[in-house]
Amino acid sequence: MAGAPVVILVRPQLGENIGTTARAMLNFGLSELRLVEPKCGWPNVKALQAASGATEILNQLRTFDRVEDAIADLEILFATTARPRDLPKRVVTAAEAAREARAALAEDHKVGVLFGPERTGLSNDDLIFADAVLSVPLNPDFSSLNLAQAVLLVGYEWFLLGPGGAEVEPSRLEAGGTPPAAKAELLNFFGRLEPMLDESGFLHPPEKRPAMVRNIRNLFQRMGLTESELRTLHGIVSALWRGRHGGS
Amino acid sequence: MAGAPVVILVRPQLGENIGTTARAMLNFGLSELRLVEPKCGWPNVKALQAASGATEILNQLRTFDRVEDAIADLEILFATTARPRDLPKRVVTAAEAAREARAALAEDHKVGVLFGPERTGLSNDDLIFADAVLSVPLNPDFSSLNLAQAVLLVGYEWFLLGPGGAEVEPSRLEAGGTPPAAKAELLNFFGRLEPMLDESGFLHPPEKRPAMVRNIRNLFQRMGLTESELRTLHGIVSALWRGRHGGS
Repeated sequence: MAGAPVVILVRPQLGENIGTTARAMLNFGLSELRLVEPKCGWPNVKALQAASGATEILNQLRTFDRVEDAIADLEILFATTARPRDLPKRVVTAAEAAREARAALAEDHKVGVLFGPERTGLSNDDLIFADAVLSVPLNPDFSSLNLAQAVLLVGYEWFLLGPGGAEVEPSRLEAGGTPPAAKAELLNFFGRLEPMLDESGFLHPPEKRPAMVRNIRNLFQRMGLTESELRTLHGIVSALWRGRHGGS
Repeated sequence: MAGAPVVILVRPQLGENIGTTARAMLNFGLSELRLVEPKCGWPNVKALQAASGATEILNQLRTFDRVEDAIADLEILFATTARPRDLPKRVVTAAEAAREARAALAEDHKVGVLFGPERTGLSNDDLIFADAVLSVPLNPDFSSLNLAQAVLLVGYEWFLLGPGGAEVEPSRLEAGGTPPAAKAELLNFFGRLEPMLDESGFLHPPEKRPAMVRNIRNLFQRMGLTESELRTLHGIVSALWRGRHGGS
């Protein structure tokens, strides 16, 4: 996949985390992974086991001895860190980083994100080349985030701004293929229901009838009924009306 | 922590995932966890090991035999699912769900999010009581997301809108005036309606009954009924059942 940020893991300690990082990357369309001085060694069996389904990312990753070498070809670099450091750096949210990354990539700039070792995070030396520090807001009482989870959140925000993110349209109704009922069919339903309710005495007294009918109509109207659901409602009304007497 | 969504894991298979779910929850200030029919058994040693630092959430969790029991006290329910189902449900992004949850919680409504089993996800029966399906956009070529990671993304979006994040948008739930019905009241309604439909012969033949019941429950669930509307529906059902015979 071209035009996506490079993920750089600095001194990762556990092979398993490299594997789960690959999975998190693939979930959100990231494909280029680099390792700096992997403490767990490389290649790593546990990484391969944990990556199931995302091994292609591991097969293509490159390892480096120093952060400087791993980021040499990048033009825009973010560094993730849980704690604010005493280095004057711009701090951005994951969403802001995603916007900046999209803008940079659109102009053919290479973008990367640095992630630090599991226990200690990035050192100040690692941070030096970062254009901004990417900070994920976390519960201050429990701010330890697994490495792959940090990658996941960064990938998620990046993916949301792409064509894939737009695929989930806001508030669409998963209508299951059947078309919504036309208003005329809804009126037809009320035309059956309301006389039954009149006959049973439910819509008494007469002075309250208009408001009651309005509430009932509004309630069913709001369901956004499909044609097949409206048929079901017709069936329910018929069944209840027929009742235990079982007549037609 | 008061006023946060409840996380409900339906038939989780691996204890480890329950532990990492607890960690993901604590990262973003969620604290109430419920399990429905945990396949890995409960209590579970692997869960406790994986939860390191978040064991308090496990100590306080509650287990249930059925989804209906686990959600009975909730008023707003989201269900996470990777795949669109052939049930007509509103689909929201994690960010939209977070906004709606914040708005509902601000009005003292109880909110929950359902997560399905690792391999299969939620069944259509599990989804019935959801007010909306929460869908996380994912790479269509690699859409398998670890359970704890799904919880993490939902918690992340929720936390972003908290203190220090963006302001909560005006409530969408104000319109009716009366509070939304709790799931238990909806269950109570079905507990009256369905025996009547059985008695009248509407739910025959038996092999089609489960799908018919599911469709009917989904249809009423989707209305987002208020308490007073549910009373109206009870009245309609009673009136129709009583029928033209006019008995009580």
